[in-house]
Amino acid sequence: MSKAGKALLVVAHGSRREASNEEVRRLSERIAQQAGGRYDMVRTAFLELAEPSIPDGIEQCIQDGAGEVVVMPYFLSAGRHVAEDIPHEVAPKQQQHPGVKIHIAPYLGSADGIAGLMLQMSET
Amino acid sequence: MSKAGKALLVVAHGSRREASNEEVRRLSERIAQQAGGRYDMVRTAFLELAEPSIPDGIEQCIQDGAGEVVVMPYFLSAGRHVAEDIPHEVAPKQQQHPGVKIHIAPYLGSADGIAGLMLQMSET
Repeated sequence: MSKAGKALLVVAHGSRREASNEEVRRLSERIAQQAGGRYDMVRTAFLELAEPSIPDGIEQCIQDGAGEVVVMPYFLSAGRHVAEDIPHEVAPKQQQHPGVKIHIAPYLGSADGIAGLMLQMSET
Repeated sequence: MSKAGKALLVVAHGSRREASNEEVRRLSERIAQQAGGRYDMVRTAFLELAEPSIPDGIEQCIQDGAGEVVVMPYFLSAGRHVAEDIPHEVAPKQQQHPGVKIHIAPYLGSADGIAGLMLQMSET
């Protein structure tokens, strides 16, 4: 893969319940299937309680050729995890790899489409 | 409103951070705006740390004329809260109001559309 590889890193909180972590990894696989040409790789990382950590997840993307990493918080509310903890985990990796563009996307819960998805699920 | 009123009760975990609870209430308002004729009312309740509780939320819907209440878990993973705690909160209200149809919808994180929404947000 060229240095211009683009990675999406799905970041979840992480759970002591391994099935929940697996659920996130499966979501990343579904995202990869739907990504078309938008991302060269889609990976998963966890803020706590599961592996890989966010720095390790970013590092793996870079080692696999990513020149750009989009960190996508799989969180519903703009609490401390989203506002402080994730940026705090990302910043040192950006300093370590100044040539790689690392960007934190808005958290899932801020998506306008959530309302429609809730309506849709309520009818299943 | 007739006895046939249909309510959607958005159920979130609840947070000590009131802004997060308000975020959920605003989501419910957006859902109500998009609901068209599907629901006569859209309300919010919390599993813990915020008001109203799930039983109180169901009761308010019924008092306001709902003959059917769809409980919609605003949760990302199928952990204990979704699998046990929410059904445990709902069951006594169903027993108390046997004439009201109370149904728990699948939790948000199980929606197929989440993958597409993550992709969409990752590009904003």
